[in-house]
Amino acid sequence: MPELFTVVTPQEALEKLKDNLTHRVASETVKTNLAIGRVTAGPIYSSDNLPTFPRSTMDGYAVIASDTYGSTESIPAYINLIGEIPMGQPSDLILTRGNIAKVHTGSMLPEGSDAVVMVENTQIVDAQTIEIVRPVAPGENILQVGDDIAKGQIILPEGHLLRAQDIGGLMGLGITELNVYGRPKVVIISTGDELIPPNKDLTPGKIRDINTYSLAALTLQSGAIPLTTPIIGDSFEELLDAARKSILEADMLVISAGSSVSTRDLTSAVISNLGDPGILVHGISIKPGKPTILASIEGKPVVGLPGNPVSALVIFDIFCIPSIYMLSGCSTPPDKPNVDARITHNLASIPGREDYIPVKLRTEGEILLADPIFGESNLITTVMKADGLIKIPLDKSGIYQGEIVNAKMFR
Amino acid sequence: MPELFTVVTPQEALEKLKDNLTHRVASETVKTNLAIGRVTAGPIYSSDNLPTFPRSTMDGYAVIASDTYGSTESIPAYINLIGEIPMGQPSDLILTRGNIAKVHTGSMLPEGSDAVVMVENTQIVDAQTIEIVRPVAPGENILQVGDDIAKGQIILPEGHLLRAQDIGGLMGLGITELNVYGRPKVVIISTGDELIPPNKDLTPGKIRDINTYSLAALTLQSGAIPLTTPIIGDSFEELLDAARKSILEADMLVISAGSSVSTRDLTSAVISNLGDPGILVHGISIKPGKPTILASIEGKPVVGLPGNPVSALVIFDIFCIPSIYMLSGCSTPPDKPNVDARITHNLASIPGREDYIPVKLRTEGEILLADPIFGESNLITTVMKADGLIKIPLDKSGIYQGEIVNAKMFR
Repeated sequence: MPELFTVVTPQEALEKLKDNLTHRVASETVKTNLAIGRVTAGPIYSSDNLPTFPRSTMDGYAVIASDTYGSTESIPAYINLIGEIPMGQPSDLILTRGNIAKVHTGSMLPEGSDAVVMVENTQIVDAQTIEIVRPVAPGENILQVGDDIAKGQIILPEGHLLRAQDIGGLMGLGITELNVYGRPKVVIISTGDELIPPNKDLTPGKIRDINTYSLAALTLQSGAIPLTTPIIGDSFEELLDAARKSILEADMLVISAGSSVSTRDLTSAVISNLGDPGILVHGISIKPGKPTILASIEGKPVVGLPGNPVSALVIFDIFCIPSIYMLSGCSTPPDKPNVDARITHNLASIPGREDYIPVKLRTEGEILLADPIFGESNLITTVMKADGLIKIPLDKSGIYQGEIVNAKMFR
Repeated sequence: MPELFTVVTPQEALEKLKDNLTHRVASETVKTNLAIGRVTAGPIYSSDNLPTFPRSTMDGYAVIASDTYGSTESIPAYINLIGEIPMGQPSDLILTRGNIAKVHTGSMLPEGSDAVVMVENTQIVDAQTIEIVRPVAPGENILQVGDDIAKGQIILPEGHLLRAQDIGGLMGLGITELNVYGRPKVVIISTGDELIPPNKDLTPGKIRDINTYSLAALTLQSGAIPLTTPIIGDSFEELLDAARKSILEADMLVISAGSSVSTRDLTSAVISNLGDPGILVHGISIKPGKPTILASIEGKPVVGLPGNPVSALVIFDIFCIPSIYMLSGCSTPPDKPNVDARITHNLASIPGREDYIPVKLRTEGEILLADPIFGESNLITTVMKADGLIKIPLDKSGIYQGEIVNAKMFR
């Protein structure tokens, strides 16, 4: 009783899904200081020059550079101190040849000045006289108006995932509101006659729903909004009804199938009835997760995950997280933490299939070791014990003990 | 006018801070499905066996293993089918020798059965008779009660950062509430007479506050709660007053100093007046960020950051983020995403100093290149243009164009 679908490689599968993922979440205006992790919905232009005034980048003395030319430790230049420019104050000093003014890092420069001599290269002679022991070139240790950002310049492009420095920089430019893509809504449906909610006691034959919660957590971590539904039994009508409602209200639909082949066929039948273009991929050369279904309904991604909780996690990570980022306008999802480690056992694979194996890391002296976690591969406890996953690529028949592998870390 | 402090290495500095960081955030009970990224405040025990009933891990037939011994393609075993166990149902079938029952992945096993034959290794002869072409050993393709998790077993240790699979696994065990450490409260104070809030128009000599917002964003990303205060001018009394209030109500205090040396001295004077043991480190052999102050006030971390927004970001990342994780009970902060790339320019450093340089990544054919971002190192725009940071270690005088470097990615 082989499963009747054509298996494609994980890369082909992801490309098919991406090619059909044309839906985008609508943009909205948010406060910049709350926009960490959001994605810009258009290019952002500067409405100011930064800095808006010529600034010193050092503690020292504002000078006319040519006054310092030729000065050395043995033949210093002696220059007349005409005042100090306090931090945060406009300067009304005007510098003429032979004069200098004391400045701080970030001080405004006096008119006429074109450089700053660092305090380390000066000596106080008396209250009016400063000795300069090293020359500066015009422009040295200062920022001119607009040197950092010129008015009208694009600061951040469209589709940019906002990081801490972006938030700080935008606030520094006075951009306190921002147009960003909305957070995608992802409906997660767990199906299976054997499932009960976690707050119910177990009875023989029943198990508690895991996937609703692990997948909702991954959804949240990817910046999207998980919407969960009550457990759906193995009923075509019930599942079709829930899926139809979900795909209307959400940006993405994930169905975690029951564990047996027959219930996976049910998921596939339901997805086929949702709309066009429908199922793109049914079966991927990957372990765990071979019977995965990838579909697109009017540009929205619909994914049928295997019911086994480990497969569901691995496949969600590979196909659903990139989809969430695409929906929110960001085409390249941020990478996961990863480390290189030495594998401690031989691991067999089948060429033509990508294998993901949970590993636990430990150090032995200076060396980082990756212990594969053996045991029933479909138990959630195997990935609870693991720190990350290693991949045996499509073209390899395994990896040997002692080989260096790259482990993508869970987070 | 050299700065009068003893400089320590970044590693020594972090160790001193950690050794003095004895404060912990109080624990609280939260709903497990909302606990992603939180840290367990005690070991978690299983109150159930998992599975609670003997289960099939395959679609196939529950058997008595010895009935299948010796069966092959050419000499199959013919066995009597006595029924099917539906998903999610208790089984009242009792298997005796010579009989089998149809099961699905996840089905309960009938009493008497000790293995499952995969459907692929069977053939239907008629409604009552199944041909078995491969033997199974007792225990094959089944899970016994408690095989996954035994009742009373520790599922997760204390101090464990909860990931998606942990949330799913705990819900699967019926653990719907959890004791976790609270989210640390971090007060961020920006000081400097030159600073104005982002919603104000710039006047000569003034710049808008950046650090409050970039550091609050990093705090949020690390799972803590940022508490921001209005900008404090360069006044000892004002800053001391704000710092005293903050260290009482918060778990950690971060002061971003004004940009000039004199205002950094002010931060140091204020921190010295906060309590014991006080300043642990003043000056670190790191660039950017040399004038950093690390302190501990009754077990709570207090950090004086340089005012320059790039230094503030780099130092917050290296010293404040590990502190946040320690406060929330997790001793090893999760790693950052990182990649190996080929550096495209020579970069000089000073042995005895750790240098952090922002880089932009690009691919050329198959090769990942890291372009260092030059220009004024204290402008927020340099890190807005960058994808990550590379480190030139303490003992190196630079890196050569073409060397492979590990870039820690911003996120």
